[in-house]
Amino acid sequence: MSRDERTSILPASTAKAVSWKEGKVVLLDQTVLPSSEVYIECTTSEEVMAAIKKLVVRGAPAIGIAGAYGVVLASQEVISLKHDQQLEMLDKKLKLLEAARPTAINLSWAISQLRQMILSWQKPISRDLLELLLMQAKKIHNDDLNANRQMAQLGSELLGQGSILTVCNTGDLATGGIGTAFGVLAYGYRLKKVDHVYACETRPVLQGMRLTAWELNRHQIPFTVICDNMAAPLMRSQKITAVIAGADRISANGDVANKIGTYSLAVLAKAHDIPFYVVAPRSTFDLTIKSVEEIPIEEREHEEVLSVLGDNRPPYEIPVWNPAFDVTPHHLISAIICERGVINYPNREKINQLLVVRQT
Amino acid sequence: MSRDERTSILPASTAKAVSWKEGKVVLLDQTVLPSSEVYIECTTSEEVMAAIKKLVVRGAPAIGIAGAYGVVLASQEVISLKHDQQLEMLDKKLKLLEAARPTAINLSWAISQLRQMILSWQKPISRDLLELLLMQAKKIHNDDLNANRQMAQLGSELLGQGSILTVCNTGDLATGGIGTAFGVLAYGYRLKKVDHVYACETRPVLQGMRLTAWELNRHQIPFTVICDNMAAPLMRSQKITAVIAGADRISANGDVANKIGTYSLAVLAKAHDIPFYVVAPRSTFDLTIKSVEEIPIEEREHEEVLSVLGDNRPPYEIPVWNPAFDVTPHHLISAIICERGVINYPNREKINQLLVVRQT
Repeated sequence: MSRDERTSILPASTAKAVSWKEGKVVLLDQTVLPSSEVYIECTTSEEVMAAIKKLVVRGAPAIGIAGAYGVVLASQEVISLKHDQQLEMLDKKLKLLEAARPTAINLSWAISQLRQMILSWQKPISRDLLELLLMQAKKIHNDDLNANRQMAQLGSELLGQGSILTVCNTGDLATGGIGTAFGVLAYGYRLKKVDHVYACETRPVLQGMRLTAWELNRHQIPFTVICDNMAAPLMRSQKITAVIAGADRISANGDVANKIGTYSLAVLAKAHDIPFYVVAPRSTFDLTIKSVEEIPIEEREHEEVLSVLGDNRPPYEIPVWNPAFDVTPHHLISAIICERGVINYPNREKINQLLVVRQT
Repeated sequence: MSRDERTSILPASTAKAVSWKEGKVVLLDQTVLPSSEVYIECTTSEEVMAAIKKLVVRGAPAIGIAGAYGVVLASQEVISLKHDQQLEMLDKKLKLLEAARPTAINLSWAISQLRQMILSWQKPISRDLLELLLMQAKKIHNDDLNANRQMAQLGSELLGQGSILTVCNTGDLATGGIGTAFGVLAYGYRLKKVDHVYACETRPVLQGMRLTAWELNRHQIPFTVICDNMAAPLMRSQKITAVIAGADRISANGDVANKIGTYSLAVLAKAHDIPFYVVAPRSTFDLTIKSVEEIPIEEREHEEVLSVLGDNRPPYEIPVWNPAFDVTPHHLISAIICERGVINYPNREKINQLLVVRQT
């Protein structure tokens, strides 16, 4: 297959998690998928913040995009104030927006880009600036889509023939395009390298069973959902040729913070001699931190775990630990696939070489 | 603490999963725990079989005990037939009972003990035989209780100071006494070695969140429930001093079939240099098989996994893999604790030495 032929079969995204429509941020409500496809229109930055917090929109790149559009709304909200008050009020709004989810770097990365533009403007926030901010938000969105396509091509070259195991959701719903890990496996399927996809259900919020299964169904890729605790015997059955995950933040040394359950899969993959790949755009790297041990791991409410009981609640309290993310040290990662290239057995030097040295 | 003092603080069981009461098998319905404590009376062997299948009663030792009482009911049901017909009909009933759950050996082990008595009787099944069968069923029940106490004492000696991670349910509800793995950790708590217990929720049926948490609450042991995919970061946090599990069948070489998720924990424990203990009575060993690769792994219905979606069902089918058990190879096991002794780093020779040579 020629390069052009290969590119022509790149999968297209089948859903829009985030879009900007006539001054509103439109979000596909991921909390009610897969039974209902409901779009929510956010007209204020507070609504965007609340939607990010509630997981109406989730996935590191998607919340970065939603956050960028949120900054446009926030800037609009202060436009009638005086310049000083504008900046003061906007600063509060952006801090709230940024704090909606602490672990994924993409949110603060996107917000800080637009914040920089606002600070360099040095004039009162005006319609002209709003237009520039919207252009930048759309560029972040479009860049992510292009990064997805690049990563799908680079990542699929690493795949052997067989079945893939993945975790959480990393496709249309989590990004601005066809996805990170999902893009790689969907393209791998089109290239006839991937036969079948196993999706970890991904407790407690079930992004695998609800969202990845929804995407796999739309892309007509054969799949099976498993409970998270079934991954090890599945690996032992020798059915899995690669485990592919996304990322919420990657440190300068290649450690990866991602959805809870990722670290477990990385350890298990190593023990079963299966390659473990992380697929993430440049925007997910946080080169200001040495290792992801330094980053805040968001702990979410207990009810997220306990709601599985439905009405079957005991008369006593059930204490719960509910970290939303975990950390996979770089020595467990076979490669990180970024739109700028593949980093095999990632470490500080290789990441610096690809993301800093070659770009300067 | 003297041996007598230590024995005096052995925890007592706080619930009866199975009991025999005026010709009926009384089962605490584990499908509706923890919100309701409902006892179900089985008056026929078919009812016992259905209850085992539906997980009204579960846990390898407990289903062995329920199965034994089921044989008493089955024998009673054929008492008015002629001798030949008695044996033919009874054989059908016992085969059905035995097939209710294929993986745990305790069920067929208990049934075969009573079957042997019936076959050696060589006369028509009579009231006298029924009494002998009931005595034997009660002996199986009582032996299990005593085995629990032995294992709690032997196992607790292995524990260091700290927190325990466990999986599925192995206490009052799963056995005839205080439990296998649960007995060890509950006694360890009384000895002030165990500070805290982390219970894996144990998808898909949530035996950890529903049943082990219920027992931990009754025993007033401080605990935290985690999703199964949180075990690895918990181990990495260095909070866990030992992982303790039960077993459904142990082969001659020390491989262990147990609740799905156990194998994953064993691999993760090894990777984090944490001892992994299996606690199981003699009745769980199946020395007729060389390794547990030979035993049937029960696959259960997809709905067990999918019911977590509640009403949030998609319009398409979600394919599911739902093995109820997995296999942990003996090289991942630090010790098997049996009522007859502790088998460190189990293998064929050590198991043969403890269970065959020393008993003959």
